[in-house]
Amino acid sequence: MFVPSTGSVTARSARSGSQLAGTPRGPHRAPDFHPRRKRKDTPMKLAILISGRGSNLDAILRAISEGRLDAVPTLVVTNRPSATGVEHAGRHGVPTAVLDHRGYPGREAYDAAMVALLREHAVDTVALAGFDRLVTPVLLGAFPGRVLNIHPALLPAFPGLHAQRQALAYGARVSGATVHFVDEQMDHGAIIAQAAVPVLDDDTEETLAARILAEEHRLYPLALQRLARGGLRLAGRRVLGGEP
Amino acid sequence: MFVPSTGSVTARSARSGSQLAGTPRGPHRAPDFHPRRKRKDTPMKLAILISGRGSNLDAILRAISEGRLDAVPTLVVTNRPSATGVEHAGRHGVPTAVLDHRGYPGREAYDAAMVALLREHAVDTVALAGFDRLVTPVLLGAFPGRVLNIHPALLPAFPGLHAQRQALAYGARVSGATVHFVDEQMDHGAIIAQAAVPVLDDDTEETLAARILAEEHRLYPLALQRLARGGLRLAGRRVLGGEP
Repeated sequence: MFVPSTGSVTARSARSGSQLAGTPRGPHRAPDFHPRRKRKDTPMKLAILISGRGSNLDAILRAISEGRLDAVPTLVVTNRPSATGVEHAGRHGVPTAVLDHRGYPGREAYDAAMVALLREHAVDTVALAGFDRLVTPVLLGAFPGRVLNIHPALLPAFPGLHAQRQALAYGARVSGATVHFVDEQMDHGAIIAQAAVPVLDDDTEETLAARILAEEHRLYPLALQRLARGGLRLAGRRVLGGEP
Repeated sequence: MFVPSTGSVTARSARSGSQLAGTPRGPHRAPDFHPRRKRKDTPMKLAILISGRGSNLDAILRAISEGRLDAVPTLVVTNRPSATGVEHAGRHGVPTAVLDHRGYPGREAYDAAMVALLREHAVDTVALAGFDRLVTPVLLGAFPGRVLNIHPALLPAFPGLHAQRQALAYGARVSGATVHFVDEQMDHGAIIAQAAVPVLDDDTEETLAARILAEEHRLYPLALQRLARGGLRLAGRRVLGGEP
């Protein structure tokens, strides 16, 4: 769902998503539905949220520095002071912030602080990249249709934790990665891009995760670039247009 | 599950499937776990069950005639007198039978007649290829670990009817085909092979189905050949070994 700010709007747009195509008509319409030229005039101001080593963060920052992703890397935020991934931000000269979830009484309070921080930096797009906190409507409503996530499986297969382990246990012969808009259900929002990888006889969780991760690093910048270029439209749950 | 002949054995094997690896130990162990040389001495006697146009039947028969699948095409059965796919059997000189489900009081009675028919022809392996009837433990127990099906999605995603329509409605960007052993749950048994296809912006149910079908025609003979060569083993739900 693109418009998760309130329950009633969400339910309506899920049923009549094709109405979202074209010009935005309300305060909560996603900025990615603006005409393409307008998007080019105002480059995406991207925040990346991490909790760990930040390998997808690194892939995104490389794509920006190599000109494959038209975005301004505006802020990197981690909820864990121990996250080693902030080094990538430092190397690329991107501001970083630690917003420790342990300092807040609940998810909504945490997300309110996150929204304030992101707005201070005039962020317009949020990429979750190994961010291990569930986000709430407080964040989603502040950036409608502009919060993305990456999941190491071909959703709707193997949502939730340990997707690679799930794929192996199920005996899947193909798995992959999914970049999707975040909605209020875990690993559920409309899909922007997917990539498949084979599962091999001698795979362990680690070897499969590594094969999927290589695709994640390729896929996430591509998906963000589709959003950055504009021209995406929603038909039901289908995300159409915006191909590079 | 490989050993679906009785409820208790099924439940047990689902939990301790790795014990199935290696030498068969009971009357219901799958013949595919015999040593490879033995399998080569006794080529797979294959029945293909269809309900419609039989395009996967055609692909399987072509693979056999071109030497890509080591099987004897023993019998083609349809439950629908109107099924046009039987023409493929005729062209390849394969015996055909019509076993109309409308002549039987229930699924078990129908499957009992099917088992009798297949045994008359000394069939040892059953490939469902667009067969529109749910099969029961009566059939599965008679051919343990030797009943296969093909599904037009990457299971566990989009089980059931209209898998291509489901994939489009979900907004999947990757779908595909799955060949799996049949167990007592629909579209659930252990997976032998999968192949992925992209979902394109301008796809309709028909164009996506055609793209998946091309992969089905490639995949089903490959999966059957893995079974025909022997050497497959089960680790939990994972089907390992037997690569061409």
